[in-house]
Amino acid sequence: MFGVRGLLQALRRCSSAPCPKHAPVARLRVREALEARELTFDDVKVQGWVRSVRSQKEVLFLHINDGSSLESLQVVADPSLKYRDLNFGSAVEVQGKLLKSPHQKQNVELKAENIRVVGPCDTLMFPFKPREKHPLEYIRQFPHLRCRTNTLRSLLRVRSEATAAIHSFFQENGYVHIHTPVITSNDCEGGGELFQIETANKVKEPEGESHFFDVPAFLTVSGQLHLEVMAGAFTQVFAFGPAFRAENSQSRRHLSEFYMVEAEVSFTESLQDIMQVIEDLFKTATSTVLSRCPHEVEFFYKYVAPAQKGRLEQMLKNKFLTLSYTEAVDILKRAPQTFIFKPEWGQDLQTEHEKYLVTHCGEVPVFVINYPYDLKPFYMRDNDDGPQHTVAAVDLLVPGVGELCGGSLREERLHFLQSRLQRLGLLDTYQWYLDLRKFGSIPHGGFGMGFERYLQCILGVSNIKDVMPFPRFPHSCLL
Amino acid sequence: MFGVRGLLQALRRCSSAPCPKHAPVARLRVREALEARELTFDDVKVQGWVRSVRSQKEVLFLHINDGSSLESLQVVADPSLKYRDLNFGSAVEVQGKLLKSPHQKQNVELKAENIRVVGPCDTLMFPFKPREKHPLEYIRQFPHLRCRTNTLRSLLRVRSEATAAIHSFFQENGYVHIHTPVITSNDCEGGGELFQIETANKVKEPEGESHFFDVPAFLTVSGQLHLEVMAGAFTQVFAFGPAFRAENSQSRRHLSEFYMVEAEVSFTESLQDIMQVIEDLFKTATSTVLSRCPHEVEFFYKYVAPAQKGRLEQMLKNKFLTLSYTEAVDILKRAPQTFIFKPEWGQDLQTEHEKYLVTHCGEVPVFVINYPYDLKPFYMRDNDDGPQHTVAAVDLLVPGVGELCGGSLREERLHFLQSRLQRLGLLDTYQWYLDLRKFGSIPHGGFGMGFERYLQCILGVSNIKDVMPFPRFPHSCLL
Repeated sequence: MFGVRGLLQALRRCSSAPCPKHAPVARLRVREALEARELTFDDVKVQGWVRSVRSQKEVLFLHINDGSSLESLQVVADPSLKYRDLNFGSAVEVQGKLLKSPHQKQNVELKAENIRVVGPCDTLMFPFKPREKHPLEYIRQFPHLRCRTNTLRSLLRVRSEATAAIHSFFQENGYVHIHTPVITSNDCEGGGELFQIETANKVKEPEGESHFFDVPAFLTVSGQLHLEVMAGAFTQVFAFGPAFRAENSQSRRHLSEFYMVEAEVSFTESLQDIMQVIEDLFKTATSTVLSRCPHEVEFFYKYVAPAQKGRLEQMLKNKFLTLSYTEAVDILKRAPQTFIFKPEWGQDLQTEHEKYLVTHCGEVPVFVINYPYDLKPFYMRDNDDGPQHTVAAVDLLVPGVGELCGGSLREERLHFLQSRLQRLGLLDTYQWYLDLRKFGSIPHGGFGMGFERYLQCILGVSNIKDVMPFPRFPHSCLL
Repeated sequence: MFGVRGLLQALRRCSSAPCPKHAPVARLRVREALEARELTFDDVKVQGWVRSVRSQKEVLFLHINDGSSLESLQVVADPSLKYRDLNFGSAVEVQGKLLKSPHQKQNVELKAENIRVVGPCDTLMFPFKPREKHPLEYIRQFPHLRCRTNTLRSLLRVRSEATAAIHSFFQENGYVHIHTPVITSNDCEGGGELFQIETANKVKEPEGESHFFDVPAFLTVSGQLHLEVMAGAFTQVFAFGPAFRAENSQSRRHLSEFYMVEAEVSFTESLQDIMQVIEDLFKTATSTVLSRCPHEVEFFYKYVAPAQKGRLEQMLKNKFLTLSYTEAVDILKRAPQTFIFKPEWGQDLQTEHEKYLVTHCGEVPVFVINYPYDLKPFYMRDNDDGPQHTVAAVDLLVPGVGELCGGSLREERLHFLQSRLQRLGLLDTYQWYLDLRKFGSIPHGGFGMGFERYLQCILGVSNIKDVMPFPRFPHSCLL
């Protein structure tokens, strides 16, 4: 990310700025300093937060971190430089020489000539202690400070790299990025689990004004229909934005606000085309994340989910399996285990069923395809089969998480769609959607992937609240 | 984006799939076909929408576009291949030979052996006509179809590339990407112009239930405070997401839902550090966009805003200017023009003032810095000057658009912040924010850039509704 070019930039940056003592002082980020394998700098400045202080008779050791890497930079100094305020959590600026370290554990160390405490830390009140392993439940109580723990710092770096990797995957494959709307007047899909929005004044006095948008408006549950609009012009489109559910359940798998990666592809030949994109996306993005932040991922495998490393390797190495819904129900019926919900053709697969299927298949990702027509929304493509009537839908089930992706071919045939909407009494609402089938309709399909579930899956994090920077769920909207 | 590697991938893709007639048939996107300068393919398949049909005695000319480029692919065919359904807007699949074109205007053309209409287009009902220039106001009426016009196709491709360019800029400079929350319990800044959210059931029966999150919840107006949390761990962070204003004004410059690019930088030395990031971001992202979609940008300079090309070149070539607020007011006072709002130290700069200042400076971007203390929010850093008391705030004004960015140093000194919050009666609400100053506080600052205004600025689009895929504004929330 930085490398020698970064170092030269840093030097340039600082030589043009007024430097109080000598010139040039290279201002380096911790990662730049750690990666400076071949270079020694006479005069560098590193800024960050103190992760540890160890004061010995002859020498003072500090570890400084600025969030540019999980690893901290070791600073060695004369014990006379130990101020009262120089302690865990304080913000410091260290000036000195960057040298090859005599120790095996690190490549470089910073021999301090000057240490300045920029912002002290009230260590008694600070909720985290040095070298202590705080449980995730404890960390979660401090939404404004938890990013200073190694766990959340690792998580948020992985999240940032995963975001970039997903954007890159689509861009490199010729997809156009679309910002689908957050506020929508489309309320038909979400049923009761929608958030409605009004101006703050209107909420106070419901009778006072008409709707701000003239019609009731909601927070989006999916950008799919809007992406379908765009697939009719760009062939391949994707979105990566927030989605919302007003579901009143406390769960390790649900948030009120979460992120969805969604894609639509035109000129599909079969559901396989969509499944191929899902599998490519998962494998490409994950490989990128593993190569871009190996330390952060290792941190999770070491302290949070030791079994996840091998499991993920299996997922990446093997082709994802495919079962039809009908096969899946057969497997469940033959299972030597009793389920709370009895498996039956025509009924939804429950979490317990999904778990069993993944285990049955050897703890690898499994596509389940061709679901009962009556279970699925109006836009899914009719397989026009029978007597067990299905649609071309697909869910991807993954170990530990369950449903990671859901997708389908979309019904592109005007008369199929028209008669289905008519039966549902939705013809008027979806005139615009029918228009897409009147003006150059194309066979197409798409899917959505829950981004937080994806992070849970690659890192082995069991509670979804721990992979979101500021989680929102029933009874909680902190900050 | 595609190139030879893309072509080879396309070939591979198709040779493994079952091909009805011959194998291998290379399935190419239009851009891939257009860029295939050195290659001729015996058997290719191109899918897209018909942009024009010209039937001559001896030959049938089609132009096919699939959204992968602004330019269309010319198809030449025997007139016997002209079906009834083959007309403007219809979706087609063309199979044939890709040849060097004998014409100057294009490199290649596709000699069709087979043309299949995948989805016909009801041209009588279709709101757009071939080779007709539709005004933006007309196009705006068809939110589900307007992406099929050249104007919106160009715009949305530019928007997609600009999104990518902004992400890349921050990533390459070591910033961590953060998803700041959309739903927030923080209502103090937005005043009356907030959207409040409730479950759909609660809106219907306000007395029925308590709040879903126990507290009133709102749509975010800015992710700044949440980014400041993260700047205390990662030094450099950015966000790029939706923001909302419930402002009841019809304007060419405002939307109810828009996108903001926000960044926070720790260990700043002065406001200059923030201004440098803004200028670098603007210039780097814009240069990337210009090089990644030259045709799309040219389209705007040709048909929408002819003067914009030269203006943008000026912006990119020269260093942005800087004026203090006090200097700006002096310039306005000396202006040979009468303003509706009389310029006076201590009063906000109005749009008319901003326009005058930009023109006065020679139609280049201008930073205005150090605004009156009493005009600005509590978190801006006190310059501790006088008698004209200011804070370290900055606005970037650009030609044609006005305010593009707003930023400041943030008050990092606990006692300054504490006494200001106390005077405002906000001490309790912002305890968490004060905490950031108790545990390793750092001098820092940041800014926000309106993404739609940025697009308006580079393309010269005067109405903000035309740069958003699905614009939301008072009385309108279509789809």
